[in-house]
Amino acid sequence: MPDKYAHIREEAYEANMQLPKLGLVIFTFGNVSAADRSLGAFAIKPSGVPYEDLSPEKMVIVDFDGKTIDGTLRPSSDTLTHAVLYKQWENIYGIVHTHSTYATAWAQSQRDIPIFGTTHADYNTVDIPCAPPMSDDMIQGNYEYETGFQIINCFNERGYDYKEVEMVLVGNHAPFTWGKTAAKAVHNSAVLEAIAQMALLTEQVNPQAPRLKDSLIRKHFERKHGPDSYYGQS
Amino acid sequence: MPDKYAHIREEAYEANMQLPKLGLVIFTFGNVSAADRSLGAFAIKPSGVPYEDLSPEKMVIVDFDGKTIDGTLRPSSDTLTHAVLYKQWENIYGIVHTHSTYATAWAQSQRDIPIFGTTHADYNTVDIPCAPPMSDDMIQGNYEYETGFQIINCFNERGYDYKEVEMVLVGNHAPFTWGKTAAKAVHNSAVLEAIAQMALLTEQVNPQAPRLKDSLIRKHFERKHGPDSYYGQS
Amino acid sequence: MPDKYAHIREEAYEANMQLPKLGLVIFTFGNVSAADRSLGAFAIKPSGVPYEDLSPEKMVIVDFDGKTIDGTLRPSSDTLTHAVLYKQWENIYGIVHTHSTYATAWAQSQRDIPIFGTTHADYNTVDIPCAPPMSDDMIQGNYEYETGFQIINCFNERGYDYKEVEMVLVGNHAPFTWGKTAAKAVHNSAVLEAIAQMALLTEQVNPQAPRLKDSLIRKHFERKHGPDSYYGQS
Amino acid sequence: MPDKYAHIREEAYEANMQLPKLGLVIFTFGNVSAADRSLGAFAIKPSGVPYEDLSPEKMVIVDFDGKTIDGTLRPSSDTLTHAVLYKQWENIYGIVHTHSTYATAWAQSQRDIPIFGTTHADYNTVDIPCAPPMSDDMIQGNYEYETGFQIINCFNERGYDYKEVEMVLVGNHAPFTWGKTAAKAVHNSAVLEAIAQMALLTEQVNPQAPRLKDSLIRKHFERKHGPDSYYGQS
Repeated sequence: MPDKYAHIREEAYEANMQLPKLGLVIFTFGNVSAADRSLGAFAIKPSGVPYEDLSPEKMVIVDFDGKTIDGTLRPSSDTLTHAVLYKQWENIYGIVHTHSTYATAWAQSQRDIPIFGTTHADYNTVDIPCAPPMSDDMIQGNYEYETGFQIINCFNERGYDYKEVEMVLVGNHAPFTWGKTAAKAVHNSAVLEAIAQMALLTEQVNPQAPRLKDSLIRKHFERKHGPDSYYGQS
Repeated sequence: MPDKYAHIREEAYEANMQLPKLGLVIFTFGNVSAADRSLGAFAIKPSGVPYEDLSPEKMVIVDFDGKTIDGTLRPSSDTLTHAVLYKQWENIYGIVHTHSTYATAWAQSQRDIPIFGTTHADYNTVDIPCAPPMSDDMIQGNYEYETGFQIINCFNERGYDYKEVEMVLVGNHAPFTWGKTAAKAVHNSAVLEAIAQMALLTEQVNPQAPRLKDSLIRKHFERKHGPDSYYGQS
Repeated sequence: MPDKYAHIREEAYEANMQLPKLGLVIFTFGNVSAADRSLGAFAIKPSGVPYEDLSPEKMVIVDFDGKTIDGTLRPSSDTLTHAVLYKQWENIYGIVHTHSTYATAWAQSQRDIPIFGTTHADYNTVDIPCAPPMSDDMIQGNYEYETGFQIINCFNERGYDYKEVEMVLVGNHAPFTWGKTAAKAVHNSAVLEAIAQMALLTEQVNPQAPRLKDSLIRKHFERKHGPDSYYGQS
Repeated sequence: MPDKYAHIREEAYEANMQLPKLGLVIFTFGNVSAADRSLGAFAIKPSGVPYEDLSPEKMVIVDFDGKTIDGTLRPSSDTLTHAVLYKQWENIYGIVHTHSTYATAWAQSQRDIPIFGTTHADYNTVDIPCAPPMSDDMIQGNYEYETGFQIINCFNERGYDYKEVEMVLVGNHAPFTWGKTAAKAVHNSAVLEAIAQMALLTEQVNPQAPRLKDSLIRKHFERKHGPDSYYGQS
C-alpha cells in the first residue's frame, strides 16, 4: 500500500537535516514539521533522535489536535505547539523550533529584537516579538499546547499578522518560525539567527543605535514582498 | 555565435561563488558584478537565485544605465547601485554588496570604523566611512539608483578617492566594496569584515583604545600601495 | 590473551575523538576517561598526545587510586582528578575535562552560570556551580587529587547531587563533566559550552535578565528527566 | 646539486600551511619562518603569495642580516623582523607573525593580556606583553628591522626571558610568536589566539575578574615545563 504521507515525511526529513548544516542546532536541539492540510496532518521529527540517525520513514505523522496517526516512534516533545499553530493559523505549512545561539539569547533576555537595518526589513516591518514567559498555570497545565497559544496571543495583542511576521521568540525559551513550506520555515530560522546576532553586535558598536526609519522599513519589505516586488525571479 | 560577454560572466560567477566560501553571505544575501568597460557592460548575479544554483550562463548582462542587455533572468535588485558606481567611477571593474555580519553591524550602528591598527592601514589610510541613511525622498524615489549617489556623495564630501578607499558602509544597510577586478572587490569585502570584527573587539578590550598614529598609517599603506612598495611580488 | 580492558579503551578512544569534532578542544586541551566498575579501572587519554595520533591501544588503564595498571604511555596529567571522582561518586562511568572557550571564560571569572532559559533547564535545575580556586596548600600538595575533592566539596556544601548536576566549573581553571557513559559525559561538555555562551550573550543583550522562574525550571527538567518524562524514546 | 636548504624550506612550508587550517589567517595575513643555525639562514614565506599557491620550493632563503641568499621570489615584507629576532635570540628556530582576530584586537587596544586562568599558565607565568607602538623615528627608519628591536627592548625592560615567554603583541599591530621549531611557533600562535579570546570573554563575564594567584601560576607552568614536569610523554 502506498504511503499517503510519503511527501510530508520526505519534506520534514529534508528540512530537519538542514538544521545542523546551517549551524542552528547541536544534538537534538530542534525540530521541523511539514503539513499537508488536505490530509489534516503533519510529519514531525521523532523525539530525541540524533539528526544523523533520521530517515523519512522515522518521521511521525500527527493530526492537528496533536494525536499520532502514523509511526512507531514518539513525536517531538514540542509536537503540541506545532499542532496548535497549524490548527489556528490556516496558511502555514511548515514550522521550526530551534535553540539557535543568538535568537535564544534574545529570548532568554525577554527583549524584542529591534529593527536596526535592511537585513531585518527584508523580512519584517516590525521588531521580532518576544512573547512573555507563560504563567505558572499554563506551565503546570498542558505546557506545549499552551506554548502555542502564548505565541498566538502575543500576535493577537500586538495586531501582528502571522503571514507577514513568520518568527517569534518565546521568553526564557527559544525561537519558533514558520512559513509556506518547511524549507521556508528553516530559511526563516537561519535569517532570524543572523538578525539576532547583528542586532546584538549593533548595540555593542553603538548603544544608542537608532531603529530603522519607516521609509526604509517600507521600501525594503515591499521590494521583496509588496505587490510591485522586484526581488527574485517572477 | 560566440558570446562576447563570456569573460565577464565567468568572472562574475567565480567571484559570486567566493562569497559563501568566505563566510560573507547566507542564502542570497549578496551579489558581485564584473565589468568590461570596452563593452560598456557588466555581468551581475541574478536576483534571489541561491549560490549553489548559479552558473556563468545565468549571470545577467547590464549596461551602465542599468538596462539589461542580455540574459533571461532578472538581475540583482541592487543592480542600479552597481550601474551608478560604474558610470561615475571610471576605474573600477568589480563591485560587491554583502550583508556580512560585522560590517553590517557597524552600518546599522551608523558609525565609521575607526582605524585601530596596521591590518586596517594595510588597506586604508582613513576610517571606513559610513554614509548616512538616505533621505525619505531618495528612498521613495529610485532607491537603488540613489544608493549609488549616496555613496558617491559621501566620498565627495569627505574628499576621499575611490581608488584609494575601496569600501564603504551604507548607514542602516550594509557594506559595498569595489576594485580593479571582481576578485579584488571580493577580497576587499572579506578584509572589511575582518577589520570590522577586530575594531569592535578592540573597543571591547579597551573602550579608550586610541586611533593608529599617522606615521604608522602612512608606513603600512605605503609599503603595500606606495611608489616604493615592497609588499607582494613585482 | 584477550584484553579485558578493550571495551573501555574503545569507549574512551571514541569519546576523546569527539572533542575536536565538537569544537571543544585544540591540540591536547582536554581528556576523556571511561570506567568499568566491575574491573575497578578506567581508560584515559595518554598525556600530551595529539588527538590525530590516538588509537584505542594508546589509552592508559588506571585504577580508582590513580595507579596505572596497563599501558606504556603516561596517562593524562589530570588522571588523579578522574580517579577521585570515580572513587567518591559511585554512579559515574565517564568523565571529561576540557578548556572549551566559553565555559573556561566563566570558570576564569569565578562565577556560577545563571539559569536563564529552558536550554539550561533541560539539563539542570540549578546554576552551573563554579567551585572556588583551591587553597595554596591544596595546590602545593597533590594538586590533581585535590582538584577532585574541590569539586566534591563544592557539591557537598551546596547540597547538589552529582547524579542530577553532571557539570562543574573549577574556578580559574576550566570545566569538568561526567555521566553514565563517556559519550554522555562528552555530550554534557558540549551542552555546557552552549549554555555558557548563551548565558554571556543573554547578559549582553539584557544586563538585568532575570533567572528562569521555578515553574519553568521544574517543567523542563522533568519532561526530560522526571518519572513522567516524555522526551526521547522509551 | 642537492639543495642544502631543503629541510627548512619543507619545515617553513608545512608550518605556513597550518596557519589557514588553524583559522589564524585569511588571504596572506601571516608568515612563518624556519631557521637552521648551522647554515646561518632561515626559510620564509614569499611576500603576498596566497597559501594555496605555496610550495616548499617557493620559500625564500634569507640570512640573519635579512639578505636573501636563495630564491627568486621576494621574501615576506616582515623578513627583517624575523632576522633581528633570530640574530639576537640564539635559541629560537621558528617565528610566526599573524593578524589573528583576538590577539590583534588586544594588540590594537595596547593592553597586556592578563593571566586569568590555567590555560594561560600552562604556557606563561606572566601577562602576555604588549610592546608599545614604535616611535616615529623607528617607523620612518628601517621599520621592520626596528619592529624586531621593539620586541626585544620590551622583553629586556620587563626582564622576561624569550625562552620562557614565546609570544608578544606589538601595539597597534599584531602578534609574533616563536619557538624551538616552526611547528612549535605555530602552536604558540594558536594558543595565544585562544588565550586572547578567553581573556576578553572573562572580562565580559566579570569585569572584576581577578588575575590567577601565584601558587596556581607556578603549579601549572611547572607541571608542564619545570624540572619535575609530568605533562606529556618523556
